[in-house]
Amino acid sequence: MTLRMELGARSYDIVVERCVLKKAGSLLNLNRKCLIVTGAMVPRAYSECIASQCREHVIVTVEPGENSKSFPIYERLCRTMLAHDFHRSDCVIAVGGGVIGDLAGFAAASYMRGIDFYNLPTTVLSQVDSSIGGKVAINLDGVKNIVGAFWQPRKVLIDPDTLKTLPQRQISNGLAEAVKMACTSDAALFSFMEEHDLMEHMDEIIIGSLKIKKSIVEQDETEQGLRKLLNFGHTIGHGVESTGALLHGECVALGMLPMCSDDVRGRLLPVLEKAGLPTSADFDREAVWEAMRHDKKAAAGSTDIVTVDEIGRGKIERVKAAELKARLDRLCRED
Amino acid sequence: MTLRMELGARSYDIVVERCVLKKAGSLLNLNRKCLIVTGAMVPRAYSECIASQCREHVIVTVEPGENSKSFPIYERLCRTMLAHDFHRSDCVIAVGGGVIGDLAGFAAASYMRGIDFYNLPTTVLSQVDSSIGGKVAINLDGVKNIVGAFWQPRKVLIDPDTLKTLPQRQISNGLAEAVKMACTSDAALFSFMEEHDLMEHMDEIIIGSLKIKKSIVEQDETEQGLRKLLNFGHTIGHGVESTGALLHGECVALGMLPMCSDDVRGRLLPVLEKAGLPTSADFDREAVWEAMRHDKKAAAGSTDIVTVDEIGRGKIERVKAAELKARLDRLCRED
Repeated sequence: MTLRMELGARSYDIVVERCVLKKAGSLLNLNRKCLIVTGAMVPRAYSECIASQCREHVIVTVEPGENSKSFPIYERLCRTMLAHDFHRSDCVIAVGGGVIGDLAGFAAASYMRGIDFYNLPTTVLSQVDSSIGGKVAINLDGVKNIVGAFWQPRKVLIDPDTLKTLPQRQISNGLAEAVKMACTSDAALFSFMEEHDLMEHMDEIIIGSLKIKKSIVEQDETEQGLRKLLNFGHTIGHGVESTGALLHGECVALGMLPMCSDDVRGRLLPVLEKAGLPTSADFDREAVWEAMRHDKKAAAGSTDIVTVDEIGRGKIERVKAAELKARLDRLCRED
Repeated sequence: MTLRMELGARSYDIVVERCVLKKAGSLLNLNRKCLIVTGAMVPRAYSECIASQCREHVIVTVEPGENSKSFPIYERLCRTMLAHDFHRSDCVIAVGGGVIGDLAGFAAASYMRGIDFYNLPTTVLSQVDSSIGGKVAINLDGVKNIVGAFWQPRKVLIDPDTLKTLPQRQISNGLAEAVKMACTSDAALFSFMEEHDLMEHMDEIIIGSLKIKKSIVEQDETEQGLRKLLNFGHTIGHGVESTGALLHGECVALGMLPMCSDDVRGRLLPVLEKAGLPTSADFDREAVWEAMRHDKKAAAGSTDIVTVDEIGRGKIERVKAAELKARLDRLCRED
């Protein structure tokens, strides 16, 4: 099926279809120079499948993990395009997870002040969330996504079959973002996730999540207000992520818990467990707090957090540091 | 006087007024953290004047010249903001010439995916041209402006008094861009420049140039078509610039000559001489050609060049490499 992100001149299609990567040549304009950015952990067959459909291509493979969202690797992508005489009419294609999309997207956003970008996400996390909406960025000095742009892809191709090669932990990692969106914005999807086997209904979960995100991004492309809902679980989550060995989605799962009413928490816990996500973890509370203070969403004296008192009805609240600290303490106590 | 750049939600005022820097606190929102970026050759009094009006400020001073438009210095600006906990609601202020504006503007465009930017140009070149229109960028591997963004300033303050401290060569350098715009787009301004002493009528020249540029940018913010007119003189000019000791405007002056009809050339030569600009120069033709091939505007097999057969009526033409080479040869012959 095809969803249409409606953003005026920046509108684009999101095509969700098994084996869609094989049809990339007919769905995308690959009759030009294409920089294909992929990850060392992404099956090589995917990038090669795309490369075989490009008129000219260069493949850059980066190491897995957030460390690849760095200034040196961003510069390397720009330098590669320059060395191959990429022009304004050429394009960048991300084939991989959220790290690949964020990094490649920022290179596309800024090379020659912006060239076409296609996102072909191959993980649950990127398929349900990060591949659409145009937020691209790199990290700096341990702070996530501190330098970047809003740069919408020209098209997004999602092949749920690519998830078959993912380890279970990576699938759980991505499901956290789907649970997040259902929790703040779609009670029906949340109930669906309560009532069904998640692995057997991945397509419905992907499409349901994309619809939520599409609606939010269409209303608030550059995160002036409503889009902050998507940060549910991320304020404390980013803090935990920066200090430990947990994956992004695992941290988001933890970060959601102290932001909920008791009722919501009562329904959220079994869904997280079913998704294979942690509901408690050992971490250094002071280190997490320090990281949160440096996080861009918490840089000022007060912070916008997202709370959920009723499934499907997330709220954005501005709280003081003390309130945020109390929420973090609540997560630690609940451990 | 105040000109208004009309770009919908991105509209802004350009205030041209003697001693306007002293009023910055009332014209700009400086009641926040302000990163002031300035150059080692820019009189310290200007940045200190601005700093004294900010609630909180950090001054970063960079070395003069294109080499400061680099990845390392761009990263340094981002890191400085991060170290000082700059948030989305804080701002970047450029105090200096075109290099400072391009560099600081790109940091503003990308830090936290974009924060407010004020441009306070202190050279003729930046006052007549580069401070408005939103093109910001850094260089890479000797290629100018290859990585950047379109990021409009929130306001531009132009104090013509700052030009009093500029060396004559820098004044001439900036006048080249004014001559360029008059040549392609405003026969009346060109005649004015033919008939008047340029130094004595700097305010009229600045305002006349800003009006031309404002009109072009309003019609074509992201350089899909019309805005390419502003590249008059730049295709060959950038090539010459990359190989020699000439300033940007001097190279633009040279680059305009082979793009004109004989009539236009006949009128252009005396204006360039009057402005203190070169009309011939020694350079390595092959090296210039090699640099032009790598220039982003000439990367493909064909290139858009700007020609002027009649003063005030520039045209954009797509030409093959051979035609461009012939134009370069014409400049060399004319030497």
